[in-house]
Amino acid sequence: MSKSYNVVLVSIGDELCIGQTLNTNVHWLSRELVKLGANVISHLTIKDEKDEIISSIKYFKSKTDLFIFTGGLGPTHDDITKKVLTKYFNDTLEMKDDVLVYLKKYFASRNRPFLDRHYEQAMLPSKSKIFPNTVGTAQGMLFMQDNYELLSMPGVPREMKNICENSFLEYVKSKIIENKNSVMVYRTIRTVGIAESTLADLIGDISFLNGNSLAFLPSYSGVKLRLGTKANSFEEASVILDGLEKYITEKCSDYIYSTKDEDLENQLASLLSEKKLTISAAESCTGGLFGSKITSLPGSSRYFNGSAVTYSNEAKNNILNVSEETLDNFGAVSKECAIEMARGAKEKYNSDLAISITGIAGPEGGTEDKPVGTVWIGVSSKNGTDAHKFIFGKDREINRELSTYNAMNLLINEIKKV
Amino acid sequence: MSKSYNVVLVSIGDELCIGQTLNTNVHWLSRELVKLGANVISHLTIKDEKDEIISSIKYFKSKTDLFIFTGGLGPTHDDITKKVLTKYFNDTLEMKDDVLVYLKKYFASRNRPFLDRHYEQAMLPSKSKIFPNTVGTAQGMLFMQDNYELLSMPGVPREMKNICENSFLEYVKSKIIENKNSVMVYRTIRTVGIAESTLADLIGDISFLNGNSLAFLPSYSGVKLRLGTKANSFEEASVILDGLEKYITEKCSDYIYSTKDEDLENQLASLLSEKKLTISAAESCTGGLFGSKITSLPGSSRYFNGSAVTYSNEAKNNILNVSEETLDNFGAVSKECAIEMARGAKEKYNSDLAISITGIAGPEGGTEDKPVGTVWIGVSSKNGTDAHKFIFGKDREINRELSTYNAMNLLINEIKKV
Repeated sequence: MSKSYNVVLVSIGDELCIGQTLNTNVHWLSRELVKLGANVISHLTIKDEKDEIISSIKYFKSKTDLFIFTGGLGPTHDDITKKVLTKYFNDTLEMKDDVLVYLKKYFASRNRPFLDRHYEQAMLPSKSKIFPNTVGTAQGMLFMQDNYELLSMPGVPREMKNICENSFLEYVKSKIIENKNSVMVYRTIRTVGIAESTLADLIGDISFLNGNSLAFLPSYSGVKLRLGTKANSFEEASVILDGLEKYITEKCSDYIYSTKDEDLENQLASLLSEKKLTISAAESCTGGLFGSKITSLPGSSRYFNGSAVTYSNEAKNNILNVSEETLDNFGAVSKECAIEMARGAKEKYNSDLAISITGIAGPEGGTEDKPVGTVWIGVSSKNGTDAHKFIFGKDREINRELSTYNAMNLLINEIKKV
Repeated sequence: MSKSYNVVLVSIGDELCIGQTLNTNVHWLSRELVKLGANVISHLTIKDEKDEIISSIKYFKSKTDLFIFTGGLGPTHDDITKKVLTKYFNDTLEMKDDVLVYLKKYFASRNRPFLDRHYEQAMLPSKSKIFPNTVGTAQGMLFMQDNYELLSMPGVPREMKNICENSFLEYVKSKIIENKNSVMVYRTIRTVGIAESTLADLIGDISFLNGNSLAFLPSYSGVKLRLGTKANSFEEASVILDGLEKYITEKCSDYIYSTKDEDLENQLASLLSEKKLTISAAESCTGGLFGSKITSLPGSSRYFNGSAVTYSNEAKNNILNVSEETLDNFGAVSKECAIEMARGAKEKYNSDLAISITGIAGPEGGTEDKPVGTVWIGVSSKNGTDAHKFIFGKDREINRELSTYNAMNLLINEIKKV
């Protein structure tokens, strides 16, 4: 089999090393590269220092076909990447007139002055191939060597994505085809309601993999099983993965809810669109997280009417008509309150179904009877209204995440019934 | 000056390399280590492969005092870290009885069977120091060499944090004191309403830094200026940073809103607590994101009454009393609607202030008059109600983030007036 197209992602920036910024760039880039069949072998994060930049190239250059560097291309003194790389590759900076024209337009259209330091953004390495950035000032620069290539891009996520989507991903695709590289292809099966080790025992002997890979990935919404194969083409990979998927599906069909790595938001969206139903929510401890996740999908206005975030008891009463008796007798974190909240949301938002989430996210507010992590989730549909109790853990953010995903799961099960 | 305590973070897992999982571990770990004065020099992500694990140690071992490895310690066949490290450090695995006792209790308390493969989680390298995990099965193991140490922990964020918070961070702190290492200390000044390059011009000549560092970090909520220094103690660092902060504050005081790297959620929380005021929200295009961010802070129930997520026009009318005339004549994305939404939220949630957010997040729904990215944000207080128009960009997620942060900013300004 031919060799795979290897990629190393290098992120430059002290803010990443010290944890001031979460590195979402490598996450996005890796996903996009994997779709093209590339083999992302490593991510490396380093400081804005010349020696670090150069030694990272030396360490990986025999292992990789492509480096993607992000960061250190801004207009201020702490941005050194362009100078260091240009010198390392024995090139010199030259004024690129088309880039200068673009930059002048860019600032004029934003009513911002064109400063001296902006001229420098049009000074680019003479031998490099330029991949344009149409939403910022720093351009993508590709340095080409005999055995590898190196792209340097800005670290601002929007600009990095712009360069990739405009032209760079297309370039990578053409390289993989031109080199006749083998492709790395993955498929993820999602399970729910079974622990990692029990799932491993259920699958048993792994000789069926025949050199292909199987990984177990526990997450809030269940254990994911990721299959991977290296093949000469996407078609060939598909045949291999179909075989492996069939084997696993036979072993543990009871626990599988998606063989397409579809998450719960998307499953819910597909189901609601298919059945032409609308939903709404009443949120207490999740504070809008459920609505926020649902509306992260474009087009969600077609099936999502809204969510009443009612943090105070007064709001639960005023907005959702939760009765004062219920709040007094059972408290806000109770089956009765969850049921009335779900009913209230369904009625106020005039939706086909509604869910409610009320619980103690923590770290404060727990009692002996209702410890931190106690959450009631109500579901209302034309079949009636019911609520379910969950006891999660002590971490506020995890409790909010788990509440949200369990609410989606209950809603999916209910939609299948109506 | 003595040398700093250098740390390299190595994350093991194919799911990270291929972008299936966002690496939040290194972000959290870096922040915690920096608080102790450690110098995090690099993050490296590699696949679950023996050669990659070993060559990463070889590459960094002369540069670092501590490696922190996360991942690859689960109970399934794809987890190889423990075996590889134990062999590399010429150690052998032995049964740790206290860990076995813990594991049996762990499974019993969860009503889960104790499987054969769980015994292996109590087999640990004989010479390593164990840092206990009290929320999972894989323990932290510290391999000690003459010139560096290496901690291996599970990659599940909750378990990794548990090990660190229980004992490992305390251990790092004691090492830094014992070694009399110099400390790396940072301070971040937040600005708003000024572009990165204009800010750089305003600050001008950087010779005042005198070898200390200044980085410019653009973000959705404005440009952050991060100062950094290496000193013999936190006290010494504080004096140096005070001087640098004073210099910068004099140059650009008009644009600084925090010298403590406090984000808008926390600023809002402090202000509301101090003035004993409550808020509520009416959200359309942000779908709950505003409420979700506000309630991510513990104790937010003291000042946040709730948010009405009204995605449909009907819900805007039913729940917030936005008039049908307004919706018919001006549409949902209008000054008039934003004002009525803010008023409606203030009234329904009986809060001292309310904000509203209504706009076109995209990618669909734009018109010539109201392109994607058009957002109206309303603010209501005892001083009356007004709304402000924003035109952001074309990216749905960025529009939602920018709407949320601008709403917080408007609210902060209004709170200062009431």
